[in-house]
Amino acid sequence: MQTFEIGITAEFESAHSLTGDFGPATRLHGHTYKVEVRVEARDIDSTGTFYDIGRLRAELSSVLQPLHYRNLNEVSEFTGTNTTAEVVARYILKEMADVVRASGVDGLKVTVWESSSAFASYRETF
Amino acid sequence: MQTFEIGITAEFESAHSLTGDFGPATRLHGHTYKVEVRVEARDIDSTGTFYDIGRLRAELSSVLQPLHYRNLNEVSEFTGTNTTAEVVARYILKEMADVVRASGVDGLKVTVWESSSAFASYRETF
Amino acid sequence: MQTFEIGITAEFESAHSLTGDFGPATRLHGHTYKVEVRVEARDIDSTGTFYDIGRLRAELSSVLQPLHYRNLNEVSEFTGTNTTAEVVARYILKEMADVVRASGVDGLKVTVWESSSAFASYRETF
Amino acid sequence: MQTFEIGITAEFESAHSLTGDFGPATRLHGHTYKVEVRVEARDIDSTGTFYDIGRLRAELSSVLQPLHYRNLNEVSEFTGTNTTAEVVARYILKEMADVVRASGVDGLKVTVWESSSAFASYRETF
Amino acid sequence: MQTFEIGITAEFESAHSLTGDFGPATRLHGHTYKVEVRVEARDIDSTGTFYDIGRLRAELSSVLQPLHYRNLNEVSEFTGTNTTAEVVARYILKEMADVVRASGVDGLKVTVWESSSAFASYRETF
Amino acid sequence: MQTFEIGITAEFESAHSLTGDFGPATRLHGHTYKVEVRVEARDIDSTGTFYDIGRLRAELSSVLQPLHYRNLNEVSEFTGTNTTAEVVARYILKEMADVVRASGVDGLKVTVWESSSAFASYRETF
Repeated sequence: MQTFEIGITAEFESAHSLTGDFGPATRLHGHTYKVEVRVEARDIDSTGTFYDIGRLRAELSSVLQPLHYRNLNEVSEFTGTNTTAEVVARYILKEMADVVRASGVDGLKVTVWESSSAFASYRETF
Repeated sequence: MQTFEIGITAEFESAHSLTGDFGPATRLHGHTYKVEVRVEARDIDSTGTFYDIGRLRAELSSVLQPLHYRNLNEVSEFTGTNTTAEVVARYILKEMADVVRASGVDGLKVTVWESSSAFASYRETF
Repeated sequence: MQTFEIGITAEFESAHSLTGDFGPATRLHGHTYKVEVRVEARDIDSTGTFYDIGRLRAELSSVLQPLHYRNLNEVSEFTGTNTTAEVVARYILKEMADVVRASGVDGLKVTVWESSSAFASYRETF
Repeated sequence: MQTFEIGITAEFESAHSLTGDFGPATRLHGHTYKVEVRVEARDIDSTGTFYDIGRLRAELSSVLQPLHYRNLNEVSEFTGTNTTAEVVARYILKEMADVVRASGVDGLKVTVWESSSAFASYRETF
Repeated sequence: MQTFEIGITAEFESAHSLTGDFGPATRLHGHTYKVEVRVEARDIDSTGTFYDIGRLRAELSSVLQPLHYRNLNEVSEFTGTNTTAEVVARYILKEMADVVRASGVDGLKVTVWESSSAFASYRETF
Repeated sequence: MQTFEIGITAEFESAHSLTGDFGPATRLHGHTYKVEVRVEARDIDSTGTFYDIGRLRAELSSVLQPLHYRNLNEVSEFTGTNTTAEVVARYILKEMADVVRASGVDGLKVTVWESSSAFASYRETF
C-alpha cells in the first residue's frame, strides 16, 4: 500500500474560554494557534503532485481569516459549541473538505496546537 | 472514517548506556528526552473533547517523574532490558495505558526523541 | 571582556487587545506568549554558576502565574497601559529585577514572542 | 494492534524549478530540504530495537549525498520528472527501501519539508 | 542602561552559488532562507511601542519579494558580489535602514539562516 | 558601528552530575546538549565573509567529539570543576579561541542549551 500527503502550516491568534469542568481554561484567555493541514491521496499524477500546495495555502488562509484576531466564542460558527482544540480542528477540516474532496483526495487531517506542548487533531478519510 | 487525537509533550533529562552492538552508545551518556503522547478516539462528547488534556498532562508527569534526572539503567523498571528509545516509549505507554483505557479511548501512541534528529515511537490500538 | 548569561524559557496563554492605531490588534484576541529571561554577569563563582537556574525558573513562574489564562487588559498591573509585547517584556523584567539584582548580576533581558514570527525584548544593565 | 517506529531527520540544500502550472515555482529557486525517514515494524527483538538507527542514518546520508548542494533538475535520477516534494520523497524512499526491506520491516515513510510551512510525504507498507 | 527591541521573522526560497574557495557551495544549490530583523530603541512612547510591527513586516516583505523564488546570482542588486549569508544580511539591512532610521531608532540587526545550523548576521547602530 | 557574525549549531549527548547545592541535578543524569557558536568581526572581506563557516563547523566538531557520548564528569578537561552549562560553554569557547583568534576576529560567543528551556552562554571580545 502507498500513500502520499501534502501539508502546510499556518497560525492565527485568538481569544477564547471553555465552558464546563476545565478549571483555569474557563477564564477568558488566548492562544497563538498553530494549524497543520494534511491532504492524503493514493497517487500523484504526471505533474508530480495531486493537489496544488499554493491553492491549499490560499484555501486555509480563507478559512482562518474569520478566526484570526478574534474571540472564538463570538465567532458565529462556534455558537453553541465549546471551542476546544478538537472542535476547532474539526471546524477547519469541515470548511476545507468540500473544495478539497472535489479533487478526489482520500483523506484530510487537521492538527491544532494551542501551545508548544498541547494539541488536538481531527482526521477524515473519504 | 473519522479520528480525533489529543496530544501533549514533555521532557526529561537522563543518563543511560546500551548493551550490545551499539558502538559509542554503549558508553555512559545522556539525553534530553522529548516525549509526545497522543490519545486517539473516534468521537468527542458534548464537552468538545474525549479526554481532559490537563489530566493527561498530570498523568504523564507522574510517569516521567521517576525517570527524570536519573540513570535509566538504574531505574528498577528497566532491569534486564536495553534502554533504547523504543523500550522507553513502550514503557511510558504501558504505564499510561491502564488509566487512559478506562476512559474508552481507541489508541495511544508515545514518541520519544533522544535528540533533534533521532526518535522512536510505540503505538497500541485497543 | 567576558560575559556569562544563564537563560530560561516559559509560556503563558492570555487574551488582550491594544488601544490606538493597531488595526486588527485592537480587537480582543490572544497569544501563546513565549518568554525568555536572560541574566548576565561578568563571572561565575567556584560552584560553576552565578545564579541558580532552578531558582530563576521558580521566580519567573511566580511572575507569570497572575498573567496565565487571563485577559491582560484586566490584570491590574497593566491598568492604564497598552499591553504590547514591549510593555509585557518590561513588566516581567521589572518584577524579576528586585530579587535578581540583589545577587549582584550585571544585566537582565526579557524577550516576549507573541507568535513564531513576532517578538519584543527589554534589557536593563545595572 | 501494536506498531514501533524509529525515525531520523537530515537536511540537504538544493536548487530546482518546476515545470507546468506552478507560478513562481517554475523559476529557478532553492530550498533547505528537511527530510524525515520513519521505519515501521510490529515488534522489537531482545536488543530493544528492530533496526539500528546509526545504520539508518548512514544509509540516508548516502542517499542524500548526490542531491546535496545540487540543482535537482540536473541530477540524472530526476530526468523526465517534475521535482516536487512528493517526487523527492518517493525517490528517497525507493532508494532506501531495498536495503531496509531486507530486514523484514513493515513500512517506510519519508517526509520532505521545502520550508517551515510546506511539506510532502510518501509512505509504503510492505 | 535600557534597550527595547522589536523583531520579526520571514522566509524566502532561493538558489545561489558562491565564487571562490568554498568547495561544494560553488555549485548551484539553494536554501530556505530564514530572516530575522531586530530594531532597537532606547525607549517606547505612550502607545507602548516605538515602531509598528505590522509596518515592519510589510517593509521586510517588500525587501524580500524580489529575492523570493529567484537565483540570487541573477538578482541585479548582487551583481559583482558573492552571495554569502553575510552579504545577504547586509543587503536586507541596508534596504530597510532608510525608512526605519527616519523613525529615530538606534539600531538594526538582520540575521539570515541558510539552514537550521548555519547563519550570519549584520548589525548597525546609528 | 557595524558588526558581522557567523554562527553554527551542533549537538552532543552526554551524562553528568553536579556537585553542591543543586538538588536533583546532583544525581547522575544527562542532556542532549545543543551548542551555538557565534564569531564576531567588524567587517567582511572581498570574498563576502570573514571566516569560512565550513572550517568553523569542522573545528567545533573536533572540540565536541571528546565530549559526545561521554560522562562529562569523567572527561579529564573537567577534572576539579563543576560541569554546569556555564562551565561547558566557557570550555568550548576556550578550545576554539586559539585557532579562531588567529584570524583576527573580534569576539566569540558560545551558548549551551541543556534542554529546550534552559541554557547558559559565555562570550569573550578580544
